[in-house]
Amino acid sequence: MKDVNVGICGLGTVGGGTFNVLTRNAALIAGRAGCNIRITRVASRRNRDDIDLGNIAFSTEIFDVVNDPAVDVVVELIGGYETARELVLAAVRNGKHVVTANKALIAVHGNEIFAAAEKAGVVVAYEAGIAGGIPVMKAIREGLAANRIDWIAGIINGTGNYILTEMRAGREFTEVLKEAQDLGYAEADPTFDVEGIDAAHKLTILASAGFGVPLQFDKAYTEGIASITPYDIAHAEQLGYRIKHLGIARRRDEGIELRVHPTLVPKSHLIAQVDGVLNAVLVDGDAVGQTMYYGPGAGDEATASAVIADIIDVARIVASESKLRVPYLGFVPDALENLDVLSMEDIQSAYYLRITALDRPGVLAKIASILSEHGINIESIMQKESEVKDGRIPVIILTHTVQERQINRAIEELEFLSDTDGPVVRIRAENFN
Amino acid sequence: MKDVNVGICGLGTVGGGTFNVLTRNAALIAGRAGCNIRITRVASRRNRDDIDLGNIAFSTEIFDVVNDPAVDVVVELIGGYETARELVLAAVRNGKHVVTANKALIAVHGNEIFAAAEKAGVVVAYEAGIAGGIPVMKAIREGLAANRIDWIAGIINGTGNYILTEMRAGREFTEVLKEAQDLGYAEADPTFDVEGIDAAHKLTILASAGFGVPLQFDKAYTEGIASITPYDIAHAEQLGYRIKHLGIARRRDEGIELRVHPTLVPKSHLIAQVDGVLNAVLVDGDAVGQTMYYGPGAGDEATASAVIADIIDVARIVASESKLRVPYLGFVPDALENLDVLSMEDIQSAYYLRITALDRPGVLAKIASILSEHGINIESIMQKESEVKDGRIPVIILTHTVQERQINRAIEELEFLSDTDGPVVRIRAENFN
Repeated sequence: MKDVNVGICGLGTVGGGTFNVLTRNAALIAGRAGCNIRITRVASRRNRDDIDLGNIAFSTEIFDVVNDPAVDVVVELIGGYETARELVLAAVRNGKHVVTANKALIAVHGNEIFAAAEKAGVVVAYEAGIAGGIPVMKAIREGLAANRIDWIAGIINGTGNYILTEMRAGREFTEVLKEAQDLGYAEADPTFDVEGIDAAHKLTILASAGFGVPLQFDKAYTEGIASITPYDIAHAEQLGYRIKHLGIARRRDEGIELRVHPTLVPKSHLIAQVDGVLNAVLVDGDAVGQTMYYGPGAGDEATASAVIADIIDVARIVASESKLRVPYLGFVPDALENLDVLSMEDIQSAYYLRITALDRPGVLAKIASILSEHGINIESIMQKESEVKDGRIPVIILTHTVQERQINRAIEELEFLSDTDGPVVRIRAENFN
Repeated sequence: MKDVNVGICGLGTVGGGTFNVLTRNAALIAGRAGCNIRITRVASRRNRDDIDLGNIAFSTEIFDVVNDPAVDVVVELIGGYETARELVLAAVRNGKHVVTANKALIAVHGNEIFAAAEKAGVVVAYEAGIAGGIPVMKAIREGLAANRIDWIAGIINGTGNYILTEMRAGREFTEVLKEAQDLGYAEADPTFDVEGIDAAHKLTILASAGFGVPLQFDKAYTEGIASITPYDIAHAEQLGYRIKHLGIARRRDEGIELRVHPTLVPKSHLIAQVDGVLNAVLVDGDAVGQTMYYGPGAGDEATASAVIADIIDVARIVASESKLRVPYLGFVPDALENLDVLSMEDIQSAYYLRITALDRPGVLAKIASILSEHGINIESIMQKESEVKDGRIPVIILTHTVQERQINRAIEELEFLSDTDGPVVRIRAENFN
């Protein structure tokens, strides 16, 4: 297996996450990439006590990374505009592929950077800059490439969405903002987030890739959420709408709409249900219709997930000897593991049980004791006198997670009880945590 | 620009959609792919009156496509197992790349097909087989490649989800199934859909790409929705859960869980809100956490969107002269269009207006008449006597879609009225249709 050498510039939140995930999942990532992705150099203003770099070369001078002939891929995670721009352009000039999480850089200097990279024949990838861990740029640039994209609408700033979500309980903007700052969701200077500038950076990039137009951040319209009141949120709800801070880009014959502002969206639409710090991007294409991409828009490892996906994309190009960029199942054949499929008795799940019981005293206790004997804990139980019919009453139970084997044994005993009638209805339940 | 020649086998629903979208969006697709994707051959048992093939070679013998030396990419859209298997293996032997929408084929014969393709050094792509137009295989094989995928849970059969959605209104399974058949959502023999076999095909593929294990369809557990009753749906709702027909794959140290069955999911989770014939796949990765991919899981052009994305992926490899598989913004630089960003006065939107009116007769009429003069139609209006305060009352209006210019002029006049007080609150609204 070939090696692909990565140099990381910046060891902050995302830099640390990228280092940790690349290290932790090295073997799995090699199985997917078809090569070993090695971190060979790290540069950052400060080293971090909580990260063990081992024998990886460390420097406080970030340009050391782009000047290291052994580095194949430069990962720019320093943020900001001017130094990042110089760093990326220097890397490109040196023939290195670049992966960045810096949306501000791409939105503002992307046209210049892409032109330089095109000339140098290198990749500049930026998935992590838009909606964190959600692979939405890949969806737009590749997955939806057959479509004329008509519009894109996204909740692409988690801070703003968190604030609007909390305000639905009747709380004022300033109060929730302060809480968001205390929780670390919002910066001490929250302008970038709550005024929509951060979202406009992302929207600019989404629009360009969606519509095939150059980046035009300076023409994006931004309106923040500071003037939104609980009163308007409540009245929008009464009209059947929820207020979200959306980035909206729409392609029209005369030009494109590029705007970030508070927006009423129908409560019945899936995007209205995206709450808290989460992100979602809704894309409308002429062939596919509406698709939506949802997940964490920030966070060290969530953003690192996208940074590393870009690194793997580059590595699959650099290291591949054949036309097979992505292996059939996403792993090279030798990396496939012969894991068995477990029998259903071995799976783990919570369960909804409906037991038809005879309406007599003590039945509930017997049911509970059978479940308990089989190590099954009850989350909820429901039995309503109003549902008695022909001397029978349904007992509905939601269990905690157990092995299916335990449930099967318990059901056998429950059905055998003289206090129950007919088969027990069993439906599996998932809490996704 | 190079040409990449495509041969389509099968001109049914998806074949027709693929033909139509490739033809309609040819220029746009060339701008994204960096080459001209030309349909040079079509084979199908029957020709279609509603599709104009022009001078494209047509044959009723599908093997003509795989034996045509000019064809670079064979698109298998005939469905079924044995003939499709022979066709794909023949294409692979002839050194052709293959794109298929056939999940049954991949789930059952994928291991054999991928081994043959690996040997021949060709791509076999199958995005369209799983969740229709949603690029979820791309997300798993590429976008989330940094992650150890822990589990995948999906609503991956639209028919089943439609039936369960309708049953929430208290209707019985058999009644809704019949309706789904009348609407064309369900086949005359609905076994594949309602028994979970179709979902198990898709889940098998999702699990293999997620966990890096060979395809093991024969070991998947399937349980259908025919035994679900409105009674259990209602009681699950009371417990805070919704019943969905999920495919669930979970990676455990001892093996993998691979199962399709009705499942209670928390109503508060986004996947519980996915209704009707739509699909959604939820993926949990160790770095990114939970991401979800949502959209149409079937339909001629939605599925074609994924088929063509795979063709473009292949074309970007075949035609690319540099390492730059995907252009920076997803379009080759020459294809970027210099479309202007429109001024906000030129955008189109619906609007929520909150006007503080003096509580006196005739004010509402004045407001309505100003809106009407500016060509603004009202969707809803809300004014509650209980909200009168200091002689003032809020009037809340939701408009139909207009130009922002119209709203701005109307607001100027509304604020100028002696019957109103203070600025008009204006929030934009989107209905996403």
